[in-house]
Amino acid sequence: MQFHLDGFRPGDPAVSDAGAALPAAVPDRPLPDEVDVLIVGCGPTGLTLAAQLAVFPEISVCIVDLKPGPLELGQADGIACRTMEMFRAFGFAHRIEHEAYWVNETVFWKPDPATPHSIARSGRIQDVEDGLSEFPHVILNQARVHDFYLESMRNSPSGLMPHYDRRLDELTTPGGADEPAVARFARVDPGHQDETETLRARYVVGCDGARSTVRRSMGLRLAGDAANQAWGVMDVLAVTDFPDIRYKAVIHSNQGGNLLVIPREGGYLFRLYIELDKLDPSERVADRGITIDQLIAAGRRILAPYTLEVKEVAWWSIYEIGQRVCDRYDDVPAGQVPNRIPRVFIAGDACHTHSPKAGQGMNVSMRDAFNLGWKLASVLRGQCRPEILHTYSAERHAVAEELIDFDRRFAEMFSAPPKTSAQDSEGVDPAEFQRYFQQQGRFTAGVATRYAPSVLTGSAEHQQLASGFAIGTRFHSAPVIRAADAKPVHLGHVVDADGRWRLFAFADTSTARLADLCRWLESDDDSPIHRFTPPGTDVDSTIDVRAVVQQGHREVDLNNLPELLRPAKGRYGLVDYEKVFCPDLERADDVFEMRDVDRAGAIVLVRPDQHVAHVLPLDGYDELAAFFDGFMIPRD
Amino acid sequence: MQFHLDGFRPGDPAVSDAGAALPAAVPDRPLPDEVDVLIVGCGPTGLTLAAQLAVFPEISVCIVDLKPGPLELGQADGIACRTMEMFRAFGFAHRIEHEAYWVNETVFWKPDPATPHSIARSGRIQDVEDGLSEFPHVILNQARVHDFYLESMRNSPSGLMPHYDRRLDELTTPGGADEPAVARFARVDPGHQDETETLRARYVVGCDGARSTVRRSMGLRLAGDAANQAWGVMDVLAVTDFPDIRYKAVIHSNQGGNLLVIPREGGYLFRLYIELDKLDPSERVADRGITIDQLIAAGRRILAPYTLEVKEVAWWSIYEIGQRVCDRYDDVPAGQVPNRIPRVFIAGDACHTHSPKAGQGMNVSMRDAFNLGWKLASVLRGQCRPEILHTYSAERHAVAEELIDFDRRFAEMFSAPPKTSAQDSEGVDPAEFQRYFQQQGRFTAGVATRYAPSVLTGSAEHQQLASGFAIGTRFHSAPVIRAADAKPVHLGHVVDADGRWRLFAFADTSTARLADLCRWLESDDDSPIHRFTPPGTDVDSTIDVRAVVQQGHREVDLNNLPELLRPAKGRYGLVDYEKVFCPDLERADDVFEMRDVDRAGAIVLVRPDQHVAHVLPLDGYDELAAFFDGFMIPRD
Repeated sequence: MQFHLDGFRPGDPAVSDAGAALPAAVPDRPLPDEVDVLIVGCGPTGLTLAAQLAVFPEISVCIVDLKPGPLELGQADGIACRTMEMFRAFGFAHRIEHEAYWVNETVFWKPDPATPHSIARSGRIQDVEDGLSEFPHVILNQARVHDFYLESMRNSPSGLMPHYDRRLDELTTPGGADEPAVARFARVDPGHQDETETLRARYVVGCDGARSTVRRSMGLRLAGDAANQAWGVMDVLAVTDFPDIRYKAVIHSNQGGNLLVIPREGGYLFRLYIELDKLDPSERVADRGITIDQLIAAGRRILAPYTLEVKEVAWWSIYEIGQRVCDRYDDVPAGQVPNRIPRVFIAGDACHTHSPKAGQGMNVSMRDAFNLGWKLASVLRGQCRPEILHTYSAERHAVAEELIDFDRRFAEMFSAPPKTSAQDSEGVDPAEFQRYFQQQGRFTAGVATRYAPSVLTGSAEHQQLASGFAIGTRFHSAPVIRAADAKPVHLGHVVDADGRWRLFAFADTSTARLADLCRWLESDDDSPIHRFTPPGTDVDSTIDVRAVVQQGHREVDLNNLPELLRPAKGRYGLVDYEKVFCPDLERADDVFEMRDVDRAGAIVLVRPDQHVAHVLPLDGYDELAAFFDGFMIPRD
Repeated sequence: MQFHLDGFRPGDPAVSDAGAALPAAVPDRPLPDEVDVLIVGCGPTGLTLAAQLAVFPEISVCIVDLKPGPLELGQADGIACRTMEMFRAFGFAHRIEHEAYWVNETVFWKPDPATPHSIARSGRIQDVEDGLSEFPHVILNQARVHDFYLESMRNSPSGLMPHYDRRLDELTTPGGADEPAVARFARVDPGHQDETETLRARYVVGCDGARSTVRRSMGLRLAGDAANQAWGVMDVLAVTDFPDIRYKAVIHSNQGGNLLVIPREGGYLFRLYIELDKLDPSERVADRGITIDQLIAAGRRILAPYTLEVKEVAWWSIYEIGQRVCDRYDDVPAGQVPNRIPRVFIAGDACHTHSPKAGQGMNVSMRDAFNLGWKLASVLRGQCRPEILHTYSAERHAVAEELIDFDRRFAEMFSAPPKTSAQDSEGVDPAEFQRYFQQQGRFTAGVATRYAPSVLTGSAEHQQLASGFAIGTRFHSAPVIRAADAKPVHLGHVVDADGRWRLFAFADTSTARLADLCRWLESDDDSPIHRFTPPGTDVDSTIDVRAVVQQGHREVDLNNLPELLRPAKGRYGLVDYEKVFCPDLERADDVFEMRDVDRAGAIVLVRPDQHVAHVLPLDGYDELAAFFDGFMIPRD
């Protein structure tokens, strides 16, 4: 898809009419008086959370934003492989793949040793290592990510739409832990500017950015390095003879700074991140009055000898780098964890800020919300004990700490002047930066996150049964064949963002132990399916069992499979034929080999946020029962 | 995606609200007085044509239908690989892939030799041979295909929407060949039933089905076999223990007939085509009063010993088979071709009818429209001489003749009783049917169509330079790497449904001859780009030149490429970086090997409907100039 040739235009590029290309307007309506969940902020974090909760019509949600309507341009644009996997669970990854720029390779430029005032290409690497994810690393305007979430919310059973033009003025959590929080809003839209609204919410989530009002109301702050470096970013339509303008390119120059090229969707637009001068500690960006012309001039200087003729600036901004993090993400002080359940949370930029150059901000923030969403939903739906809500801060704070450490090193190396000789004590050798970039590929792709053992994440006792599915990491999908219709599919793509747990039963060679497991799961009094599936719902409504057998799909006799793997569902008792998978030996390697799964079989249990909760033997009945017993609430 | 579990629901399955899942309503408005093109009929044929013409806002189009609104269910459901390639050009193939059932394998069942009153599986084959197309053969409710076209039209520069509730009462073509046709319509919607409207159209296309009023007004008829066999079709939600219910399955039984299982999108719905008794020549389906209960009973009989418990019938119909075709598709009698330009056309079922079991009807019909659409557009836009319009009937009538021949044999073999022994003189051996099915795979996938030499399709003199791109057949895409950003793409996917011609220049090893060609194309007085590109438009607006070099993408120096391959476009003169491709040696074979392209290079010229128009040497300047001169109108 090519677009933006004659100028940047926000919205869906497939729609010719500029007005119709933007998300549908929301009707003006008052805030509800009371909801289960109040989400403050319609950025990617808030929208991820809202889209997750919108799947459950029994949960009432209100999502508000200070802005007058959906974002139209600017801000973040990098979408890591791991985030694409999450978008798949929300059902729109294929549309992002279609529209976005794909980061296939990253190139590195440094001062030309022969003519150091010019730059020369110094390296070229594959951006994502083979097999890391089935999805590419892509770049797309953040506003389009919002659009897809807004569409997903609108299409959901609850038809959720945001309330815009609301400023949160006060958030209080009165009385006992079971009482709702009280949020007072002021409308800021013309004609309503004196109006205030009060909303009571069982849970409040602040997705309201680095200056979060929700965080302030909790008495928390971001701690860390003060920002002391200024960066400029601009999305431009420009003519250049820089030959790698359609590659992600890291440029270290001797001509006053470093620069990052991010090609953008549509084939013409690109983004430049440009390092500006060091700030004095007392200086702040706002004081410096940097103009877009200065930014363009800096870009030209760094790109020399290549030209840069900017025709249109779609968006630009100047910001400061600082690595800061909040020490907890909920309103329960460390000492009170055993006695109190969190009522107020923060997520995304409200919790952590860092440089944008590694493309982590939006990604980590959305995954904060994906971690929290299913937990809130399962507590509100009476499935899980509210104590699981403590795991949100624990799991995601650890991720932010890693991110801050990574980003500090990455930003330092990025900002350092290029070392021109081995004797040079200052600066960073661009080759070293390239190595660091490559080493950190798993981290920046978002697949290195590993949640520590907790009530929701098992211990590693049986990890060797499926060592390719590391407990605590996201379930690493692999290609398989669906037994009932021979469709080549990705095993991980059965994990929709629907709040369900997935139990992948990798079968033993004869499938005898698989059959025993299914029998136990379906009928034993201790089985988590038996204990936790609400009466009157489908057998897979809480724990969705999928089997991967070792046979080819033509060897599978559906009528001989355990009934749990061909369950009768819904009001008609129709058979669900999508529970059993086989290795795809024609197009790929055997999933048992790819993920080191024991031929005697294994259970790989996956949380609703796609992370591996446990690996157990096929007959690990007691351990499986005990694991679910740790956080689930039995149904009558 | 799984849906329809608790009952069939029309519309977009991703949208929870039943009303919002359907296409947006069109405003009530009168027909225009005069248009360039009147399309009668909003089936897949009419919508393909409308979507193609809607790309050109300077062409006025009116599309009408007798029905009160968009189709919601039923009718055709098979989408051949070739049709998916066409949908790609319209920009929605990825969404169809996401939603549809994929036909991966086809299974064959026949009477069990041991117990002939039961059926037994007799064969199992891959449905589409490897490498035939980059797209799968899929199954999706025809109504959803309409939805995607309606969305494409609405999103197009002309924002085209149908007029419903209109009955064509009379179509006349008065006076000289340059005068518009006059169509008289009656509104059939409540409150408007006495109103008539008259519309004058430069061209009229009847996409109004087997009983076409447009065809009748031309004095033409469908000729061929009278229908003498009745078939029933039903889309059901049902419980069965037939183990291949999620495969396309051909079942020949001894228990009163044959049956075809077509699994459907969403994982639960399936379609059964059931042969009913032979009809007497005097009988017609309407007289026989067949009920859905009888249809279900027949299905049960054929499937024995397997059960079939129908829970919901989403749609059903009884129809007769007959192979019929109209001897021409426009209003110019054979003898008058040299003197008259067609003004009225027919397409789709208005031209040819046949059995639905090989899934050809909708596919061939849409491709009729795709053949006609760009031709009408290029004549109306003043690019091409109107004489090219004669090629529509010539090219598509030949396709229908092949289809009818194929279908006659296919339907005979399908309907014959299964031969139970080699001595049996009656009937067809199911193994023979399976062989025929396999042999005809290219035909049913839609890739066997080959247009004969004409003003739009060159002769085979230089075919050996690129024998994998057979002149007259559709351009067989192959995986390549885009040079400017290392993206793995499909070469054929640059052919959008935008009315442009594509010149694929497969480079010589040194690229010297490629450079010469580009220079000639860009600046020689005889170059078709020079002669036929309207002033003030981009250099690729009429003929879009793409190069495939033999080097790997890291060896390509963009700044050394001919300027035609990095053209400055649009109001800003931005560089289009998507013109040059390289072999993809990592994920696939070398495109030069895959398609037998001469290492000395070759030109492969592709029509706007994706068919190969010509293969020429890289320096075939005179032949290239002469070819375009045969049908294009020079500017100024």
